[in-house]
Amino acid sequence: MLIIMHKDATADQIAHVLEKIHSTGAAEGFVSRGELHTVIGVVGDPGQVAELPIAAMAGVERVARVSKPFKLVAHTGHDATSTIPVATTSIGPETFTIIAGPCAVESEEQTLAAAHAAKDAGAHLLRGGAYKPRTSPYSFQGLEEEGLRILDLARTETGLPIVTEVMDSRDVEKVAAVADMLQIGTRNMSNFTLLKEVSLAGKPILLKRGMTATIEEWLMAAEHIAKNGNLKIVLCERGIRTFETATRNTLDISSIPVIREESHLPVIIDPSHAAGRKSLVAPLSLAAVAIGADGVMIDVHCEPEKALADGPQALIPQELKELAGDIRALADHVGRRY
Amino acid sequence: MLIIMHKDATADQIAHVLEKIHSTGAAEGFVSRGELHTVIGVVGDPGQVAELPIAAMAGVERVARVSKPFKLVAHTGHDATSTIPVATTSIGPETFTIIAGPCAVESEEQTLAAAHAAKDAGAHLLRGGAYKPRTSPYSFQGLEEEGLRILDLARTETGLPIVTEVMDSRDVEKVAAVADMLQIGTRNMSNFTLLKEVSLAGKPILLKRGMTATIEEWLMAAEHIAKNGNLKIVLCERGIRTFETATRNTLDISSIPVIREESHLPVIIDPSHAAGRKSLVAPLSLAAVAIGADGVMIDVHCEPEKALADGPQALIPQELKELAGDIRALADHVGRRY
Amino acid sequence: MLIIMHKDATADQIAHVLEKIHSTGAAEGFVSRGELHTVIGVVGDPGQVAELPIAAMAGVERVARVSKPFKLVAHTGHDATSTIPVATTSIGPETFTIIAGPCAVESEEQTLAAAHAAKDAGAHLLRGGAYKPRTSPYSFQGLEEEGLRILDLARTETGLPIVTEVMDSRDVEKVAAVADMLQIGTRNMSNFTLLKEVSLAGKPILLKRGMTATIEEWLMAAEHIAKNGNLKIVLCERGIRTFETATRNTLDISSIPVIREESHLPVIIDPSHAAGRKSLVAPLSLAAVAIGADGVMIDVHCEPEKALADGPQALIPQELKELAGDIRALADHVGRRY
Amino acid sequence: MLIIMHKDATADQIAHVLEKIHSTGAAEGFVSRGELHTVIGVVGDPGQVAELPIAAMAGVERVARVSKPFKLVAHTGHDATSTIPVATTSIGPETFTIIAGPCAVESEEQTLAAAHAAKDAGAHLLRGGAYKPRTSPYSFQGLEEEGLRILDLARTETGLPIVTEVMDSRDVEKVAAVADMLQIGTRNMSNFTLLKEVSLAGKPILLKRGMTATIEEWLMAAEHIAKNGNLKIVLCERGIRTFETATRNTLDISSIPVIREESHLPVIIDPSHAAGRKSLVAPLSLAAVAIGADGVMIDVHCEPEKALADGPQALIPQELKELAGDIRALADHVGRRY
Repeated sequence: MLIIMHKDATADQIAHVLEKIHSTGAAEGFVSRGELHTVIGVVGDPGQVAELPIAAMAGVERVARVSKPFKLVAHTGHDATSTIPVATTSIGPETFTIIAGPCAVESEEQTLAAAHAAKDAGAHLLRGGAYKPRTSPYSFQGLEEEGLRILDLARTETGLPIVTEVMDSRDVEKVAAVADMLQIGTRNMSNFTLLKEVSLAGKPILLKRGMTATIEEWLMAAEHIAKNGNLKIVLCERGIRTFETATRNTLDISSIPVIREESHLPVIIDPSHAAGRKSLVAPLSLAAVAIGADGVMIDVHCEPEKALADGPQALIPQELKELAGDIRALADHVGRRY
Repeated sequence: MLIIMHKDATADQIAHVLEKIHSTGAAEGFVSRGELHTVIGVVGDPGQVAELPIAAMAGVERVARVSKPFKLVAHTGHDATSTIPVATTSIGPETFTIIAGPCAVESEEQTLAAAHAAKDAGAHLLRGGAYKPRTSPYSFQGLEEEGLRILDLARTETGLPIVTEVMDSRDVEKVAAVADMLQIGTRNMSNFTLLKEVSLAGKPILLKRGMTATIEEWLMAAEHIAKNGNLKIVLCERGIRTFETATRNTLDISSIPVIREESHLPVIIDPSHAAGRKSLVAPLSLAAVAIGADGVMIDVHCEPEKALADGPQALIPQELKELAGDIRALADHVGRRY
Repeated sequence: MLIIMHKDATADQIAHVLEKIHSTGAAEGFVSRGELHTVIGVVGDPGQVAELPIAAMAGVERVARVSKPFKLVAHTGHDATSTIPVATTSIGPETFTIIAGPCAVESEEQTLAAAHAAKDAGAHLLRGGAYKPRTSPYSFQGLEEEGLRILDLARTETGLPIVTEVMDSRDVEKVAAVADMLQIGTRNMSNFTLLKEVSLAGKPILLKRGMTATIEEWLMAAEHIAKNGNLKIVLCERGIRTFETATRNTLDISSIPVIREESHLPVIIDPSHAAGRKSLVAPLSLAAVAIGADGVMIDVHCEPEKALADGPQALIPQELKELAGDIRALADHVGRRY
Repeated sequence: MLIIMHKDATADQIAHVLEKIHSTGAAEGFVSRGELHTVIGVVGDPGQVAELPIAAMAGVERVARVSKPFKLVAHTGHDATSTIPVATTSIGPETFTIIAGPCAVESEEQTLAAAHAAKDAGAHLLRGGAYKPRTSPYSFQGLEEEGLRILDLARTETGLPIVTEVMDSRDVEKVAAVADMLQIGTRNMSNFTLLKEVSLAGKPILLKRGMTATIEEWLMAAEHIAKNGNLKIVLCERGIRTFETATRNTLDISSIPVIREESHLPVIIDPSHAAGRKSLVAPLSLAAVAIGADGVMIDVHCEPEKALADGPQALIPQELKELAGDIRALADHVGRRY
């Protein structure tokens, strides 16, 4: 940590800051006097140092962090990207994973049809929401426990492992009893009590980026999970909120190589929710392969015009099959097993 | 709702959309043929109409909503801004309310000192967080139940009603047993299961705007609360996330008159969290009075340099007192009781 | 400037950076070795130091600026806010200035009517665009030289000084021959060759914030003007681009106190262009007075429904008059002459 | 265009709006009465209709555009993407173009070295800035005419056509005398007088997206050029401004397929300026190929640590060569000639 003092900070103020640092017993401060500013470098345990309430002290202009605030999800000691096993499959740097399924579980018939479409297209996991966070309280809110039963049935029929969202700490046990992988949705990325509960459940976790979260905040959310003992985390970029309205969100594809530099966690892309319309799903999926993402998550629906949620972004089975073929060819080109 | 068909939509596709609308039994569609596009106007129960998955139908280019999606929090039938009673005080258009207190409850001594400072300055409610959502899992996470006990004590000592945040559905009962008003923080604005639980608890609710939420999404979050039976809602603007880094968030002060046009709910401003530094708290508070907000929420701390959270934005007691005097004079000028 | 070296930077790389710094003859580097990182503090002439291409050197992780990059518009040596004379009036901290007029000069009749409305309401300057930057090439683009003639006539009739936009370096001389104050529009804030030309013209300049510019970039644009010899600059906050669509732009009202801390230049607010609709103009104007802005710029039109540009945001004369009365009362309350 | 009337609009107000529409002689209005709102559909010449100042009329709540505002750059009549010839090469859908060179022309030696590196790597055009828009007036501002002379020499030596930025209407003739393609930079995308001048110069134009421009505004800027008679336009996505600070800008890669749907103009990507650091250039370039962009523009510098502008984002010659090999292989995979 670097502490930049006001250009008119007094010697007393500087001494007071140093005393504060040394009083922790865990850090030391080194003073550099510049022409305009005095700068204090702080060395010591980053956790304790970051907690020091220095910025509010008299004479302090600004505090600049030097070290990254995350530890368990950072690269140190994990030079390669991790591979996260999920039931019978795994997500990591050797392969390219396709997760497909309906946005919402609406009925047994619709879910099984979509599950078979996912299976036929060669998907590795089945997605589908039993609990749905919806902007309007008047929209379809999900089938909840009945939805979990249907997902269980879809797994039995297709053999595909299940990833599904959990929205409330009280539902974690129930959802984890069925799901092979627990999804944290974009609206809950900073729901820290929920992050703790899903960590403790021990299942692999798919952590979507908050629509307004910086990459660093996203990795800190992963750190919340990791700190509670569970490192089986896969990140999912799904677009951020910007001024552009041509797409529902702006897919921040640069986050993939940034994450690679910062963290050992695998990362996939959700082109369906990023774009909000199906015509962009194929080009964004191919870009995901080329840039080095570890997978994609795609909405599929046999009758999008009957979908209770997000119909305009769902592919129909034939489209998914064709896209999966193109993804496979490109994954092969870049040296990943499909 | 208006449905804009592709310029090459077929007669069959148009007929199919109309059939879909009429099949609901709750809406009618009217066709207008333009030079380039055919437009279908949909009339009927807005709730049911909004749920129609029209956008995914063949031949549809775009769907434009005409009516607002919120009902209970909208102006209809509530021409004036509502007044929300909170224990011995109330928040509404006749008065200007000051909520003050520490960002976090850190200890009995610190909280009581800040509570007395709030009382001395003439604040109407005491704020203070017992449960704290923190970006880093290595930061102070709040005193939790011990924090609630301290807040209860502060109320007994000062007579000020308490507003405090609840972060998890499982804690609602516990927090509601102590708090006079429950706060939903910016990170939980779209935590719909939590919104339902706090609604059912029956206490007045302070609903902070999500840092990435549009005003409409914010009002829809209020609608989630209202739909579960509780209309004792006060909105709190606390800044949105933009590209500007000179302030922690960008206070969207225009949201105050926009909310006035759209909703009957009172709305206050939190200048401390919007700006992230104390030098902006006074000017933003005075702007809040002038623009017609119903109150402000201000961080106060007797020793900001010892604060475990957000010290740089906290006023010291003397500064709060001076600001409260300026607020009172301005509130008087604009015709509000303080 | 602080140079943070990679945690695995070699001694050679550190020596190489130091050599680079010292080779300028204008700066010195001081090394602080931390537990994880070595940090080099650079002291010397800020202009030359900022130009060193350090960030691309081997072993460098990141460069943090400590000093502000602007000089002439900064507070140093100008403790109070400056007062900028504009013909017969002036803009500064003692007064509150109202600039009013039509968005565009459309005809002699329309402009004179609006000019008289501005005069009657007590405005201090008349605004009106003869050259109009329009998103669509099919929209009205301004009357150009004929517009300048009309503005000259309006000044003769009302006695109000004129502020009008110049969009192209080739027009500066022509516009400066008529205008009392030259306006740089939001789209041209970073048009550095234009900034140089208007500076050389010697007239006072109204510099609108780029809709995507940070406050620092805005002050750097002012520095471009100042460096060419003209310090008669008034800043104008007109909203920034964010994800919120309820208003055309998001008025960043916090920029007023931030500018106060950083610069001696006066700053006004344009509520009409920020909000894009007239119902917000009055509340935002009053907030501008309360927060300490030095003026407002307001669109007025006698027949907004006939306006060729931005009709929905224009006040009619009676509305302007009422608002001016409220502004005057509030300016008086906060101790400014109107 | 659709006009949505207020729910309490009077019959007179509706009649008044209709009269306004019909008075143009170029449009007709059709009234649809809904349960809550009356909607008026307007049919006729889109240019004239868009100019009607309807939004400011009494009783009007909101105006929704149905047709797109651009014409000449839209798909109509140009079903395939256009191919734009640039001297001895061309940019379009059959090929994948690499533009490479230094950010700024700093000296003859540096520019020739970079030009040879571009040539050796197989680039098709040479980029290099003689006129540089710089945030700080104290930074290197470009060699101007001397820079043009050096670019001319580099073309003679390597045979590569030249693309270079023009910033001021007065310089268009001078720059067009040397350049094979004129670049409009991100800060000048909405400098409409400059757009007109470069159009009239008749050379192919590389139009960078404004860092804060929506895709529609970007296409409207292209329309400004096209309307003045020049359709030899290539678009360049270079990242937009968002809250994320891990990259200098956020590359909006989704703009590529969106542009494909809306316009016949080719579009390339500038990964160097989007990301601001070299480690992201290769992955973003490969994503550009996979998503269907028509080319990339890459900064190259033989000694990035001596670069006077943007050194941290420049590749060295060997890195460019390796990346070009990977791009060629991928272009081949997706069926484009390199």
